[in-house]
Amino acid sequence: MVVKVYGPAYASPKRVLVCLVEKEVEFETVHVNLLAGENQNPDFLKLQPFGSLPVIQDGDYTLFESRAILRYFAEKYKYQGTDLLGKTIEDQGLVNQWLEVEAQNYHPPLNNLVLHLMFSPNFGIVRDEKVIKESEEKLAKVLDIYEDRLSKSKYLAGDFFSLADLSHLPFTSYLVGPVGKAYMIKDRKHVSAWWDDISSRPSWLKTLEICKKYNPLA
Amino acid sequence: MVVKVYGPAYASPKRVLVCLVEKEVEFETVHVNLLAGENQNPDFLKLQPFGSLPVIQDGDYTLFESRAILRYFAEKYKYQGTDLLGKTIEDQGLVNQWLEVEAQNYHPPLNNLVLHLMFSPNFGIVRDEKVIKESEEKLAKVLDIYEDRLSKSKYLAGDFFSLADLSHLPFTSYLVGPVGKAYMIKDRKHVSAWWDDISSRPSWLKTLEICKKYNPLA
Repeated sequence: MVVKVYGPAYASPKRVLVCLVEKEVEFETVHVNLLAGENQNPDFLKLQPFGSLPVIQDGDYTLFESRAILRYFAEKYKYQGTDLLGKTIEDQGLVNQWLEVEAQNYHPPLNNLVLHLMFSPNFGIVRDEKVIKESEEKLAKVLDIYEDRLSKSKYLAGDFFSLADLSHLPFTSYLVGPVGKAYMIKDRKHVSAWWDDISSRPSWLKTLEICKKYNPLA
Repeated sequence: MVVKVYGPAYASPKRVLVCLVEKEVEFETVHVNLLAGENQNPDFLKLQPFGSLPVIQDGDYTLFESRAILRYFAEKYKYQGTDLLGKTIEDQGLVNQWLEVEAQNYHPPLNNLVLHLMFSPNFGIVRDEKVIKESEEKLAKVLDIYEDRLSKSKYLAGDFFSLADLSHLPFTSYLVGPVGKAYMIKDRKHVSAWWDDISSRPSWLKTLEICKKYNPLA
């Protein structure tokens, strides 16, 4: 039975798709329309009580939270496709560290920019210029630290592409696209080279291809 | 060489201490005074560029982000002390899922309550009643989902204590103590039993004992 990915039009589920492509795992997608409130249907809430995406089903095993799903597939198919975890416990520690930095430092201000500049006025979000300004300032500081880090190693956790890099793809793609702030990436030499590298991976291009029939704003 | 934990007076470093006690790993603590701005010293920023706590040094290996550190020690000492990861890949997936729920759903509103009710007016935080009200409502919804989950299994990821439960200890301890909202836990039967269980573990009592000489507000 192939893996089912509930999403897939939105950014967080794309983390899972790109991981599955890297790991050469077959999957099918189940579209859940957030604007139509399908994530609040009782059947969906049985899978994911918080009403968030993505969720996966692997046989009769159900899992949610995108970064937990990434770790699950990277571990389950450790010796298939791209190694995304790191080879030593120390490397794995750094992958987890930068994956946490993505979740705790990079994502919150970027998510605010996405909500207020891309999704407003959908989902009842009222555009707030103060939030936009503060979020851009916070994200800029994070990107300055990334610039320093990426001047010392090709990828965030070292000289290998990992879950830590992969997890940045969907929301950064919004940042340089519909959010209209590509300069935040392009003006930083090493961040820009890193972005060009990871966003041109065949796995990411394939993910975009799979999702192009869905419009997250429709 | 014993493990060094930079912190340790604050909540996030206590996650690391309780993990090290559970894993029977020897450590020493290095106090970093946030109110005195020691986390912005150039030497500290070399260890942790974001100026956050905790950081650990294990020989010449440095790691930051509390949940990444938990995973590192739980994996490195897999067969020593309490197993905190789960025995199968499926159980590990659920541990990671609930650890992400703690980070993404439980922690943000709880952290707001801690900042506005416990740390205001320290760190220049201005108490905001609207933030307090909204955060309590959000946390209550999360705790309702926990109540349902903990009516079905003794711990969050299943019938075993894991990193997912452990990660809740320091901030929930603030919630039932100085934040003054113990009723949010006590009024929910299964959450209350779970809290009594995990907060009476010798590892947590030892962590509190180690930290009692430090006052995070001084």
